[in-house]
Amino acid sequence: LNRIKASGLKLRFCTNETQATREKFVKKLQGMGFDISVAEVTAPAPAACRILKERSLRPHLLVHDDLVPEFDEIDKTNPNCVVIGDAAENFTYANLNEAFRLLIGMEKPVLIALGRGRYYKETDGLKLDVGAYMKALEYACDVQAEVVGKPAKAFFESALAEIGVPPQQAIMIGDDIVNDVGGAQRCGMRALQVRTGKYRPCDENHPQVKPDAYVNNLAEAVDIILQQL
Amino acid sequence: LNRIKASGLKLRFCTNETQATREKFVKKLQGMGFDISVAEVTAPAPAACRILKERSLRPHLLVHDDLVPEFDEIDKTNPNCVVIGDAAENFTYANLNEAFRLLIGMEKPVLIALGRGRYYKETDGLKLDVGAYMKALEYACDVQAEVVGKPAKAFFESALAEIGVPPQQAIMIGDDIVNDVGGAQRCGMRALQVRTGKYRPCDENHPQVKPDAYVNNLAEAVDIILQQL
Repeated sequence: LNRIKASGLKLRFCTNETQATREKFVKKLQGMGFDISVAEVTAPAPAACRILKERSLRPHLLVHDDLVPEFDEIDKTNPNCVVIGDAAENFTYANLNEAFRLLIGMEKPVLIALGRGRYYKETDGLKLDVGAYMKALEYACDVQAEVVGKPAKAFFESALAEIGVPPQQAIMIGDDIVNDVGGAQRCGMRALQVRTGKYRPCDENHPQVKPDAYVNNLAEAVDIILQQL
Repeated sequence: LNRIKASGLKLRFCTNETQATREKFVKKLQGMGFDISVAEVTAPAPAACRILKERSLRPHLLVHDDLVPEFDEIDKTNPNCVVIGDAAENFTYANLNEAFRLLIGMEKPVLIALGRGRYYKETDGLKLDVGAYMKALEYACDVQAEVVGKPAKAFFESALAEIGVPPQQAIMIGDDIVNDVGGAQRCGMRALQVRTGKYRPCDENHPQVKPDAYVNNLAEAVDIILQQL
């Protein structure tokens, strides 16, 4: 990361993290020694807030408690849409029924999903991610969710806009073959798949997505990028 | 009901009820004055038990506590499939993660769903039904559930087999345009839509399903059937 910053290349962190505010997320990474600030992070919640404001939508939030502060400035009275994130322990039977009832009661139900991940791994095992619960509400209400976050094209485009770089001159580095690599490529960027994190060997035979290159880790990705400058 | 029984016509009750055993379900209807016995009921849980036995499947159950006795005779050790019913309060975050982990850990995940309903109405409001949670697990594990219960063809066929009647000589009476009427018709039966229960006027413009006739209630359905004998 320091080598990229020293090279003068523009850098943006694109995360689908919706279990915490950007502040908390950045503090965690800083604690691990990364040189990162809130202003450098593109995340689903602020992207959703822009959409809510633009379309005068007042959300009912089905999100993690720690994410709620990201929506502090949004009017949430008399909701006319539902925003679903990785609510984790908040994915209770009662909370899902409540979100469902609000949606089905709307003349034109609007469901905004902060990502469409299937599952993720925590120390105590695999957990269902926001995408699974999004599918449940989509089916029950016969609606299609609007996905904010990777792999949505608009999400990558807003990250690029924030640093003022066209997609052809940008490269994505990620561990998620579909959300990182596939999403960035559909937006016109090149993308490197790192063989760390959630990478699995079977990703190299993915039926839809072919990365521009594989690298064993982030350092190797930086080597390749800096060599080609 | 009494008029049908008196006429000598064969009768079968087809229900997607998965919040209680057939015993409990029948007692409830008897209490309301209906002449009905357990032996006359076709329900998803016993249909699932037949499949489990035939294919040597050992289920992990994500169902309502009151339904568990239907699976008393089934080996549930070391599960190699997941059976999901309308688990209601048992649809907790922890239980869904547990079912998901078992499925994703299987070499060939098998998910059996006791129905595919979207939602239903209770006195305290609308509730998400088994179909919504089925979709969540389908998406997370990239599998297709096998649906037992209406509108599955096999479900109607087993009801017909139990009374020894070919579909061309049978008629379904139901309030659910898709699960009752559509399912029965796809199986070669005729089907009457009653304008009671979960019927909604917009059902009469359903894009896929056209009942053989509409009736205002069960008594009118019996009138029509007895007239044509």
